[in-house]
Amino acid sequence: MGLELYLDLLSQPCRSIYIFARSNNIPFEFKQVELFKDSVLGKKPAAGSGAEQPRTGPSNSEGASKVSLLKKVPALKDGDFTLAECTAILLYLSRKYKTPDHWYPSDIQKRAQVDEYLSWHHANIRANAPKTMWIKVLIPLFTGQPLPSEKLQEVMEGLSTSLKQFEERFLQDKAFIIGSEISLADLVAIVELMQPVGVGCDIFEDRPRLMEWRRRVEDAVGKELFFQAHEMILNIKELSNIQIDPQLKEHLAPMLMKMLK
Amino acid sequence: MGLELYLDLLSQPCRSIYIFARSNNIPFEFKQVELFKDSVLGKKPAAGSGAEQPRTGPSNSEGASKVSLLKKVPALKDGDFTLAECTAILLYLSRKYKTPDHWYPSDIQKRAQVDEYLSWHHANIRANAPKTMWIKVLIPLFTGQPLPSEKLQEVMEGLSTSLKQFEERFLQDKAFIIGSEISLADLVAIVELMQPVGVGCDIFEDRPRLMEWRRRVEDAVGKELFFQAHEMILNIKELSNIQIDPQLKEHLAPMLMKMLK
Repeated sequence: MGLELYLDLLSQPCRSIYIFARSNNIPFEFKQVELFKDSVLGKKPAAGSGAEQPRTGPSNSEGASKVSLLKKVPALKDGDFTLAECTAILLYLSRKYKTPDHWYPSDIQKRAQVDEYLSWHHANIRANAPKTMWIKVLIPLFTGQPLPSEKLQEVMEGLSTSLKQFEERFLQDKAFIIGSEISLADLVAIVELMQPVGVGCDIFEDRPRLMEWRRRVEDAVGKELFFQAHEMILNIKELSNIQIDPQLKEHLAPMLMKMLK
Repeated sequence: MGLELYLDLLSQPCRSIYIFARSNNIPFEFKQVELFKDSVLGKKPAAGSGAEQPRTGPSNSEGASKVSLLKKVPALKDGDFTLAECTAILLYLSRKYKTPDHWYPSDIQKRAQVDEYLSWHHANIRANAPKTMWIKVLIPLFTGQPLPSEKLQEVMEGLSTSLKQFEERFLQDKAFIIGSEISLADLVAIVELMQPVGVGCDIFEDRPRLMEWRRRVEDAVGKELFFQAHEMILNIKELSNIQIDPQLKEHLAPMLMKMLK
């Protein structure tokens, strides 16, 4: 049994794994999970086996629940071995498939800089960027009410602080985070920063240095793959037309409101 | 110039680095940073060079600010190379000093399990355990007011959920998180879980499986070193006697209250 990746490309970590696997020609079976209908919300997990064709496969709830120990995407299954958590999956793939050195350099100091970014990312970019999607799309969708604009402003201010640190402390005047070549750090960062873009908060607009870095990342992984991976998030507004289980709505609304207090 | 570690043993990540370096006989110069007086709060950083004797060295603010790019502890300086973030520092030390394999196993699946835990830890144990200290000690210290007991209860419930996952999904019936030997995952977990103990929330009391694991971790790193590293946090209540800059108090009080909304 080959490598299976359980992903929903609406999720940033899933996109980084998808791009990494595809751009390194790692053979895998794409197992579709639909985040807003199932596993991440603690409801029945579903996964289709639509080989790299998102949202087309048949439902296969048992498969996903067995794989994602933590009941969320991304998840990896490689024979009997299962693994959750984006960073762990990226590193596992880089080791197992011996991907080019630049992704996670063997140079001890460069490798440490990738680790440093990945750790900082958790509590900063990762903690702030996704909130734009919650505010602009998901909360209105689940609660039926738009959020006050000051809430969006507060979220954008938090994100701006993180972006300033990202540019000044990590990117600086380098082509990529750790120097002249792309690494896992850039990949994990870019997928997160495309989340606000999808919901209409184009954080690249007034940040030329960040925009140039984005272009370099797109070129490094290939523009076609980049935009294929981001197709769903860049069309996220269509989500407002999807049907969400009323029970799920009721269950989640107060949790979502609390998240953003 | 040898390895310098900028630490405050009141901080959990600092303790994991201290224990790791000491238990692996890694030679380093202990640079004392006092968290509640300086760098982490964005004020003037201070560091003493009291070689492994916390809080005795002379002030050396320039040293710490040069080292901690992100203006917080822990930070590492190795010649011209500086590094922040606990996980990055632990991995750097394990590679540079070729520490025993069990800390970060070369077996690709076991290594992935350590990575998986370290990533999960950020958003779960690390996100919940420290709140007990904020509630019981720091917020009263900075604001001059005790917090309502329902707030503590809310925090303890969040922590309980994380501990349940920790026991059922990671520890299971194994001696350590990834099997029969201690790894970086156990070390990063234990220092975080000692934080509530220090402020009087003994989370081990009613959790025999967790308590047995704690004893095994203590034995693996050595009880003397374990308790030396935890001496300050286990006497945290003495903090209530320390003098805090009134300006700092004023600056932080609203931020602290917001953190716990």
